[in-house]
Amino acid sequence: MDTEQLTQKILDGDRRALARAITLVESGREDHRAKAGELLSGLAKHKRQSLRIGLSGTPGVGKSTFIESFGMMLTGLGLRVAVLAVDPSSARSGGSILGDKTRMERLSRERNAFIRPSPSQSHLGGVARRSREAVALCEAAGFDVVLIETVGVGQSETVVAEMSDLFLLLLAPAGGDELQGVKRGIMEMADLILVNKADGPLKPVATRTCADYAGALRLLRKRPQDPEGFPKALMVSAVEEHGLEQAWEEMQALTAWRKENGHWDRRRADQSCYWFDQEVRQALLARLHTARAQAAMAELSGQVAEGVLTPAAAAQQMLQDHLKG
Amino acid sequence: MDTEQLTQKILDGDRRALARAITLVESGREDHRAKAGELLSGLAKHKRQSLRIGLSGTPGVGKSTFIESFGMMLTGLGLRVAVLAVDPSSARSGGSILGDKTRMERLSRERNAFIRPSPSQSHLGGVARRSREAVALCEAAGFDVVLIETVGVGQSETVVAEMSDLFLLLLAPAGGDELQGVKRGIMEMADLILVNKADGPLKPVATRTCADYAGALRLLRKRPQDPEGFPKALMVSAVEEHGLEQAWEEMQALTAWRKENGHWDRRRADQSCYWFDQEVRQALLARLHTARAQAAMAELSGQVAEGVLTPAAAAQQMLQDHLKG
Repeated sequence: MDTEQLTQKILDGDRRALARAITLVESGREDHRAKAGELLSGLAKHKRQSLRIGLSGTPGVGKSTFIESFGMMLTGLGLRVAVLAVDPSSARSGGSILGDKTRMERLSRERNAFIRPSPSQSHLGGVARRSREAVALCEAAGFDVVLIETVGVGQSETVVAEMSDLFLLLLAPAGGDELQGVKRGIMEMADLILVNKADGPLKPVATRTCADYAGALRLLRKRPQDPEGFPKALMVSAVEEHGLEQAWEEMQALTAWRKENGHWDRRRADQSCYWFDQEVRQALLARLHTARAQAAMAELSGQVAEGVLTPAAAAQQMLQDHLKG
Repeated sequence: MDTEQLTQKILDGDRRALARAITLVESGREDHRAKAGELLSGLAKHKRQSLRIGLSGTPGVGKSTFIESFGMMLTGLGLRVAVLAVDPSSARSGGSILGDKTRMERLSRERNAFIRPSPSQSHLGGVARRSREAVALCEAAGFDVVLIETVGVGQSETVVAEMSDLFLLLLAPAGGDELQGVKRGIMEMADLILVNKADGPLKPVATRTCADYAGALRLLRKRPQDPEGFPKALMVSAVEEHGLEQAWEEMQALTAWRKENGHWDRRRADQSCYWFDQEVRQALLARLHTARAQAAMAELSGQVAEGVLTPAAAAQQMLQDHLKG
């Protein structure tokens, strides 16, 4: 299929074409990269936008169940939903394709849902670029909502927040002491904190936890992109499927406010510039990854280790002889 | 003074020449960088080694008092001691030259001590390079011990650990709950944990805190570079000046073991290679900092923000037109 055909099929919402295009942006082959670039530039002209929702939560918090229930609710409203995962650690287990689909059995059978696991690659920079481009493809394919899931590993939350319009933090009910376990930086990224498992015997704990987080959120500095009352903490039960509609209403209210007040467009523009900057940096550093550069680095490293060259002198030699600007 | 004269004076242990050389390595001017490189390469041939001790601890833990007491003890043993600070945040307050010297009043008057504050620059990469080179100058000037102090800001502990032979973590007595406050990554870097303020009414708390940390250290995976019983947690009182000799004995025992077992040399070689790699990366990224590159980035960013170019397309253009490899 040539790029023009693929472009048209994606714009028509063809899921197989979308899956194929995501495979293309995930490829490291140079001809694939060129074709992917052409495809993305063509699709960008149509300026289609989904609501991109980033979602973070540690394992055990019920993330898959939440995505399934929340996704089913959205498709029930007639919305088209794509689910992507950003997990730099999935390379270890060779990807989690099977895992994701079996974890979200109902949603994966929905005609209006599209589930795609994380590209299996250990380098976060690579995962970030591919995920961001997969999001762009889903937007072009006309999905109303793109859910971008991450497990809280290292910097992956920042990466996901930088490609999302809204960022949700899914937490489990817990004793007051554990509140400190959520890093301040992650709290500051959240637009909504959802305390899951607000059902059965955990409900009283969830109520307390939710109040604790609401208190913690009030202590954070007010952000210009938030209307009164945001960020918020809410209780949900993914298993019993309650609280999901309210969460969705809050997301819509926040989105509407940000669109009216210019924050939506500004954030999108800022994010694009951020990714442009990141791409330039990664491409510069990629010059170290050629076989020739690696061989030169190894040779000079040997001399540095023996104390024949200082790190600075070796670096200068590397740049002059092998990485001329 | 030409480079040859400066080299000789540093080797002679001349403190004013040392201070001047540190100012030279801290300079960003290209001719200064060239001269600094020449100086460092010449001094490296003499292969002089100090014991480089990294020291981290949050404000309020008594770090300055500890360095003063510990430093005075070392000079009392006839050892020459240099104190350097790595503080990427000090740029904000315009450096802390006065601060460091007044904080360590007795030590700063010692003939065998040399105190140098952090270069005031906000970029951690820049601070790291300059600090590492200042350490190399102190080694060449024949100091027996180089203490490298950092306040726990972001990645600065990692930076200091990568230029140290030993890494000390100075902590205050605290309740059991606060033990979690020390990041696991920092704990894993420590060779010795020193619980300070083990004096007066805080002594019982210090005893408990020390036992808690000793327990936490035992839970960490054994590192090949540690003999039986390390890393250790000890109590000290910088104010009452006790526990310092024991801490110093432990450092010497650990150092002797590592030298005998090849870990000392291997770690030094690994660190040099690490810094070589870092310098190459920083130099590559520095190509983005020229006025021409910045102008091109700004121009392309504008087009990315407007949605005229995708981040990938803009990055490709930047690399082809302005950063040809």
